[in-house]
Amino acid sequence: MSAYAIGVDLGGTNLRAAAIDPNGHLLARLSVEAQYAAGPERVADEIAQMIETIRQRLVDSSLQGVGIGVPGYIDIDAGVVMEAANLPDFEGFPIRERIQQRLDTPILLENDANVAALGEKWMGAGKDVKDLILLTLGTGIGGGIVIDGKVLHGFRGMAGEFGHMTVFPDGNPCGCGNYGCLEKHASASAIAAMGRMMHFGREIRSAADVYALAVQGNPRALRVFESMGRALGIALASLINIFNFPLYLLSGGPLPAWDLFAPSMFEEVRRRSFTFVPTGTRIEKAALGADAGLYGAAYLPLCHDC
Amino acid sequence: MSAYAIGVDLGGTNLRAAAIDPNGHLLARLSVEAQYAAGPERVADEIAQMIETIRQRLVDSSLQGVGIGVPGYIDIDAGVVMEAANLPDFEGFPIRERIQQRLDTPILLENDANVAALGEKWMGAGKDVKDLILLTLGTGIGGGIVIDGKVLHGFRGMAGEFGHMTVFPDGNPCGCGNYGCLEKHASASAIAAMGRMMHFGREIRSAADVYALAVQGNPRALRVFESMGRALGIALASLINIFNFPLYLLSGGPLPAWDLFAPSMFEEVRRRSFTFVPTGTRIEKAALGADAGLYGAAYLPLCHDC
Repeated sequence: MSAYAIGVDLGGTNLRAAAIDPNGHLLARLSVEAQYAAGPERVADEIAQMIETIRQRLVDSSLQGVGIGVPGYIDIDAGVVMEAANLPDFEGFPIRERIQQRLDTPILLENDANVAALGEKWMGAGKDVKDLILLTLGTGIGGGIVIDGKVLHGFRGMAGEFGHMTVFPDGNPCGCGNYGCLEKHASASAIAAMGRMMHFGREIRSAADVYALAVQGNPRALRVFESMGRALGIALASLINIFNFPLYLLSGGPLPAWDLFAPSMFEEVRRRSFTFVPTGTRIEKAALGADAGLYGAAYLPLCHDC
Repeated sequence: MSAYAIGVDLGGTNLRAAAIDPNGHLLARLSVEAQYAAGPERVADEIAQMIETIRQRLVDSSLQGVGIGVPGYIDIDAGVVMEAANLPDFEGFPIRERIQQRLDTPILLENDANVAALGEKWMGAGKDVKDLILLTLGTGIGGGIVIDGKVLHGFRGMAGEFGHMTVFPDGNPCGCGNYGCLEKHASASAIAAMGRMMHFGREIRSAADVYALAVQGNPRALRVFESMGRALGIALASLINIFNFPLYLLSGGPLPAWDLFAPSMFEEVRRRSFTFVPTGTRIEKAALGADAGLYGAAYLPLCHDC
């Protein structure tokens, strides 16, 4: 009997689930609108239902377990979300236990950025390495650290807060209390904010609006991406000097603007990390997009001890 | 028959060796002036002789192996020093093989900052944790990363280059090609250089001269240490946000000035790391001083797989 695991992603809008076999083949996927407003019990019900639906489709295979990527800090051993800024109702809610009550299979929780890093390591751009760092560029900047194929959690599950590395000590103020956090200079939100400062004479609602102007050759829009690349490069150079990993990946909404921000990013990295060029360190685009989290979550019950 | 290991430190001036038992008791120590000018073969001979001398003193115990801390990048598997700015003759020299030929015991090489971090973890200020980072403040700033009791090497043995984290993107120029490297703002050399900029009307030969003025209450000397503390705090806050480790240790010559630089250091860390206070993260002085490297080197053959 063939085996598979299910990865679940608690995204901002949708709950997504995918059945993936030990070789990384995606066997089935499912997506439903998340009813977060109805509370965590309801969401736990929905997740359990999605898992049951997939199970019934794959009756000839055996479910090894379920991994769930959650946007928050996780107490891995307790299976509880400790802090989740975007899902405050889930804080302290025993989501693992609640789903486990409905299903006879192991349930594992993990932070969403960590499962994305793990997914890239397993089946994405990091297949050929054991150690990598993933930076996810979105509203903020998060990320995951994979060492020897395992996620680095830190002693309170809070490792990988790359968005709050200081890149400019007197830079933009951040809600965290700091100035010059990477995510205030290089996230999708920061791109939009810098765009608004440029007074383009049209409304800038998102990073995509700045991108649209930049690809038309607007020099001020291009400078926004150049500035974003510099901030990323400063942070990446420090990460390379600290970790000496073979691979650093970027993912998230601003990735299509790679050609616009990468030149200044690499310029900063070459200047600021003396190990970058001689060691052949790579900085690349992540490969799995929004599916990275599904792969990484499904990998949790398959890989054991990662 | 009781067991012990020998830790060897290739210091700038002296070769030092210590016999340490598995409980961390120091059984014997030896120090000789290093004959680096006579070449690596001669130094390998001297190390082998030191080990033999200790072995003869401890005939009733069994030597488990020898660990050697070397100031350079090590190819751990090959037992070869790949790069050593202060010991260029040792680059590519098969030091492990050469010593092993003379002695019938396993020889393990490791970077000197890494063995210091491991020593602090085993018998020093990090005894009660599994994960820690050590920053060594000297001519430059190096350090080691210990995760789950093991050294993080990176894919080319170059992890832990904290001295080249960018703290001020437009700060002091560094020989590495960067601007604003931590070690240009917070090492012992940086303290001396900042002291010279202050025109105290007396010769400043070292950080100790600036320290002497500061403890007398000289306000400009005090500002040097305040500035050094700020740079350290910026770097430590980023490290805390990245690793979420329970403990960060400082060691090296400037440590006696702790009371002068720590206030500004902690002020920066509290402001720049939102996880620092709520998680109870600690920043402390290392406990073993120059012996950390001896303990860590001796621990290599004792701990296996660290």
